[in-house]
Amino acid sequence: MPVDVSFEDVRAASGRIAPHIHRTPVLTSELLDEMAGARLFFKCENFQKTGSFKIRGATNAVLSLSEDDAKRGVVTHSSGNHAAALSRAAQGRGVPAWIVMPSNAPAVKKAAVRAYGGQITECEPTLAARDSTAQELLRRTGASMIHPYDNREVIAGQGTAAMELLEEIADLDFILAPVSGGGLLSGISISAKALNPKIRVVGCEPKNADDAFRSLASGKIESAAKAETIADGLRATLCPLTFGILRERVDQIETVSEDEIVGAMRALWERLKIVVEPSGAVAAAPALLGRLGAAHGARVGIILSGGNVDLSELPF
Amino acid sequence: MPVDVSFEDVRAASGRIAPHIHRTPVLTSELLDEMAGARLFFKCENFQKTGSFKIRGATNAVLSLSEDDAKRGVVTHSSGNHAAALSRAAQGRGVPAWIVMPSNAPAVKKAAVRAYGGQITECEPTLAARDSTAQELLRRTGASMIHPYDNREVIAGQGTAAMELLEEIADLDFILAPVSGGGLLSGISISAKALNPKIRVVGCEPKNADDAFRSLASGKIESAAKAETIADGLRATLCPLTFGILRERVDQIETVSEDEIVGAMRALWERLKIVVEPSGAVAAAPALLGRLGAAHGARVGIILSGGNVDLSELPF
Repeated sequence: MPVDVSFEDVRAASGRIAPHIHRTPVLTSELLDEMAGARLFFKCENFQKTGSFKIRGATNAVLSLSEDDAKRGVVTHSSGNHAAALSRAAQGRGVPAWIVMPSNAPAVKKAAVRAYGGQITECEPTLAARDSTAQELLRRTGASMIHPYDNREVIAGQGTAAMELLEEIADLDFILAPVSGGGLLSGISISAKALNPKIRVVGCEPKNADDAFRSLASGKIESAAKAETIADGLRATLCPLTFGILRERVDQIETVSEDEIVGAMRALWERLKIVVEPSGAVAAAPALLGRLGAAHGARVGIILSGGNVDLSELPF
Repeated sequence: MPVDVSFEDVRAASGRIAPHIHRTPVLTSELLDEMAGARLFFKCENFQKTGSFKIRGATNAVLSLSEDDAKRGVVTHSSGNHAAALSRAAQGRGVPAWIVMPSNAPAVKKAAVRAYGGQITECEPTLAARDSTAQELLRRTGASMIHPYDNREVIAGQGTAAMELLEEIADLDFILAPVSGGGLLSGISISAKALNPKIRVVGCEPKNADDAFRSLASGKIESAAKAETIADGLRATLCPLTFGILRERVDQIETVSEDEIVGAMRALWERLKIVVEPSGAVAAAPALLGRLGAAHGARVGIILSGGNVDLSELPF
């Protein structure tokens, strides 16, 4: 049995990372509340440094390394927000970050990594090439692997988003977060259940990438279908660590269609006047659609996970 | 000589409207600061109720009416943010708002007015038809005309945006706001010069609608060219009241091209992760382009005036 991540780990992470991240605001909208028939509290991680919550876990992981380990740097494979976040976290500690990215990753994602000082190693766009390239880098440099979610410090760091939300907004009935590899949802569920045992923790994912839904239903980790979804940050699958945490603490998984994701994204942009990426809007969709089975006027916290979108390719 | 609007009027407006509006946040971005070579403080009126600063002046004007006058309602002609704002302000006091709109106004603007309880009277899309339709309504109803900017209470209300910004951020060297009919810039300049006589007040407008620039240069109110600009909120011209205030208190007018407006808008969306309308981005452009003649590291306040955009027609 793996030792669980505890709320004490989240608390420790919070103290460690506070000087390096934003305490993001919580926004509300009367019009969205009317639409949902509930009171919605949006935790705006799209305003977070590097544009997503990923900086929380990455910073906690980098700061948790010993002096000697830190000097040798960090490695990850990611084509998304974790890559930029780890680069920035490493830069903050003055240590190198090597990022394995598939050769077909968008130029804008590579530019973000470089802007934060990350060193990109390209590989073929296959899982096998990604793993072997990362392994080779680890051997060569002696650096530490910081996996995007299969990592206790990363999970504890992500949990700080819910800790902040619950400190600020009391008596939430629900808390919603997107689920992909499960790092964010694991951290959120640990904080939320520790601070408010009666809260319902809801994971949200695209119907087209509903492996978490199927995994929690079947009791074993199901692999993703070949997932085509506009929510490009939500295509990973659970690992044993996150699966174990979610089984214990998540009350329901809600899945939403591609149209529902775009509709939620549009409602957030139009009503809150904020830029949220499709993966970030996935957690808002079930609330806006009245899908939670919530009593009228229920208090619902929603983690808007990120705001990194290519404005040239909007779905509106 | 018209009696001027004073900072005491702004202070009174602030107390009057505070329970009815948002105190909007001030956002910052290290990346935008680097781009500008200055420290930028963005006052986010795009998050304001009804999506723009216009609710400040409209609310102050409606609340300043006597009980008897208020009962008979308010009238304005506007196809933009003032129409929605006045509707909402009247709704807040439980009195009718009649809004004269050109028959070709976008459906989305009409829907916003109706959502806030405004009653639309359509007219031919000419200045003459707009005026005569409003006059007819005023005669018929005994309501009060609340002009979008040629109105002392409206100007005092708009000034509260700068008052809040300067209360929160000390020692600004510059404050930037868009200029159209001059109501916002008048209010801003009154507050800014009262609270910090050394601050430079900069009006910002599209090159394609540079009548304020030409008016302050020539010393008389110049009419607009047939203005085609993406900043559709900035096509009005000064009136004697606003012209008099601006002549005394505005230090410079900066004009920006259509491409520069879109570039500033995109930078705000990408870096601050917020939805700002083109007219709102006009005030950010001179700062982001390093046009102010500011010393490196100067402290620059920027009023982001609104966030009402049609997401189906973005210029990216």
